[in-house]
Amino acid sequence: MKKYSLIAARLIGQPMFKLLAKIEQMEKEGREIYHFEIGDTDLKAHRHIVEATKLALDNDHTHYVNSMGIRELREVVCEHTEQTLGFRPSIEQVLIMPANGIIDCVMRCVVNPGEEVIYPDPGFSTYIAVTNYTGIKKVGVPLKEDNAFHIEVDEIAKRITDKTRLIVINSPQNPTGAVLKKQKLEEIAMLAKEKNLYLLSDEIYSRVVYDCVHYSPSVVDQCKERTIILNGFAKSYSMPGWRLGYVIGPEELIEKMGLLFQTMYSCTPPFVQYGGISALQGNKDVIDERIQQYKTMRDLMVKKLNEIPGVSCLMPDGAYYVFPNIKGTGMSSAEFADFILERAGVALLPGTCFGEYGEGYIRICFTRRLEIIEEACEMMKKVLKQEASCRRY
Amino acid sequence: MKKYSLIAARLIGQPMFKLLAKIEQMEKEGREIYHFEIGDTDLKAHRHIVEATKLALDNDHTHYVNSMGIRELREVVCEHTEQTLGFRPSIEQVLIMPANGIIDCVMRCVVNPGEEVIYPDPGFSTYIAVTNYTGIKKVGVPLKEDNAFHIEVDEIAKRITDKTRLIVINSPQNPTGAVLKKQKLEEIAMLAKEKNLYLLSDEIYSRVVYDCVHYSPSVVDQCKERTIILNGFAKSYSMPGWRLGYVIGPEELIEKMGLLFQTMYSCTPPFVQYGGISALQGNKDVIDERIQQYKTMRDLMVKKLNEIPGVSCLMPDGAYYVFPNIKGTGMSSAEFADFILERAGVALLPGTCFGEYGEGYIRICFTRRLEIIEEACEMMKKVLKQEASCRRY
Repeated sequence: MKKYSLIAARLIGQPMFKLLAKIEQMEKEGREIYHFEIGDTDLKAHRHIVEATKLALDNDHTHYVNSMGIRELREVVCEHTEQTLGFRPSIEQVLIMPANGIIDCVMRCVVNPGEEVIYPDPGFSTYIAVTNYTGIKKVGVPLKEDNAFHIEVDEIAKRITDKTRLIVINSPQNPTGAVLKKQKLEEIAMLAKEKNLYLLSDEIYSRVVYDCVHYSPSVVDQCKERTIILNGFAKSYSMPGWRLGYVIGPEELIEKMGLLFQTMYSCTPPFVQYGGISALQGNKDVIDERIQQYKTMRDLMVKKLNEIPGVSCLMPDGAYYVFPNIKGTGMSSAEFADFILERAGVALLPGTCFGEYGEGYIRICFTRRLEIIEEACEMMKKVLKQEASCRRY
Repeated sequence: MKKYSLIAARLIGQPMFKLLAKIEQMEKEGREIYHFEIGDTDLKAHRHIVEATKLALDNDHTHYVNSMGIRELREVVCEHTEQTLGFRPSIEQVLIMPANGIIDCVMRCVVNPGEEVIYPDPGFSTYIAVTNYTGIKKVGVPLKEDNAFHIEVDEIAKRITDKTRLIVINSPQNPTGAVLKKQKLEEIAMLAKEKNLYLLSDEIYSRVVYDCVHYSPSVVDQCKERTIILNGFAKSYSMPGWRLGYVIGPEELIEKMGLLFQTMYSCTPPFVQYGGISALQGNKDVIDERIQQYKTMRDLMVKKLNEIPGVSCLMPDGAYYVFPNIKGTGMSSAEFADFILERAGVALLPGTCFGEYGEGYIRICFTRRLEIIEEACEMMKKVLKQEASCRRY
């Protein structure tokens, strides 16, 4: 008899966390590491959110609550959606749960093993991890640098088969930072409608845009038919450790997802949910100010990367990653990431963590203090120059 | 094409949460309800745990962390296990995650759809919910009142087939309050060893025992071969809303479970984990004192229930539920629960929420203030007497 289930044999997790463990070990051995691998920021959590969470703890919001989320937060999410996307979902269309888990819940509730999901490649690693362990077939749509990593509607269309159940899109996109235009999103929504498919719109970076506007394909059906919005607080409100997100979708599907979440986790901590209320109701200027800080970091990062021989980097419109081309160094993505970690002490992710079309690229999360960005890029430049001159002889 | 996956069609969730939503609605309509349905307490969270969680928030423990759990908490769990069970697991044997999710993770990592899990019936509803949605075959072992709801080793043994992969036991037990003796637990561990099966020991109520001692079957293999301990903070430390638990098992299995947890939820909130450290390291007297309070509540509840015609109730040795026999009322469990909710405003759970062998019983969580227990039992007695006299004419 086998020791583990088929599921266990197929688990790959998120490669980022594997690297995290390796780096933890290096640091324990005394190495100083520049951290650009994780989608998180150096900056502290916003004070009003921390205080709201603490107040909820003091007010004994520490008991079991409705597994769909507390009513107050669900209502604030409806309100916020009306303000930002122009339609107000019903409260039954809203489920509060950790954002990463939404990918797992959506896929498992609408796709059977052997059926197909279309998703962007390179794309967020959890899309791959979930399809992998569940036995769902993943069908990647290549994102190309010469198209600024924008997904093409006809590239999606030609991959639809009679086994396709779900299209996943992500704008602003991880890892490329591409932000899709309104018209393209509407075309994708119309394609999903025409083909009678679910459309998961991962909008986790919706607040993180620079000099452009975030649009959602959900305006076409207001999440009543097939569009499912994934959103959360980790990226837009610097709340990664709260593990708080929300999903808006068709009522019946949301009920199913709620049952799955309940079976696994009962409910989301209530005091954590009060933090979320504070985030959505808080002063928007505080959030905007932070996005401006990110923009300064982005600009410096792109400038410095483009000074490194063999590296070229596009300017991303959203999210907080750059996805530079490193093909000119002669190394593969994995070789580059290993080399830079060992030699420059800079932790970043190979593009292949995000799919096969990530080969030749690396992902850098740039929401770090400016001096750190300067130093790390200088280190990278130095070791790459050394390496290049060694090779020459 | 079907609208949902096979998984979605099989989801049943935890019946308790369905009732919770119904009660929420009744209360919105102005009804006053006595709450005895949820496995939670009226009492506030312990102050030192709340303060530790708040301090962690202030100290910016709000970022992503190792998905296996923060090292500090994992080490404290090792320490605590050594103190309470007499063996010290390696840190790689410990994974921090919500306790309810452990059931899902263990079952999915070791059992394939169509294979079998043996579990106590009546038993915690998540055992049933997970087997149901995953397509794992559930094989219930009846717990009998005339045996004080203790599980019998030969009753487990005779249900083992070549498809059995996992035995689940739970002591102190939900919903019956039965606490298994050391010898019986060792016999079960030896049976699992002999038949080469995994053994999930759900010890979530390990601290909640009255005048007796909690034993664990894990002492046989120290969780190195097949025994998996599920534990958490909700029940023993009055921390339901933290959604914090831990699992101790064979290193390789724990790694698999960590990958599954990571794929779904990335990590457990770090500030929540600091609350857990404070719970395990805090003054044990504070916890013991609360268990003494529970005992007083238990004694009153059992006494009052036994004064109600048609109801008889054993004295539980652990957990915080009573599981009275209501067969003398002539109602089914579901009828009784509905009747008592409607007529007496008392919320409790029909025994059938916990499996087919729960028919004829109800579950009452007794960790409520004494005057609430008095009032609710008086109300129940009154409406049941009225009903009985109506029937007579």
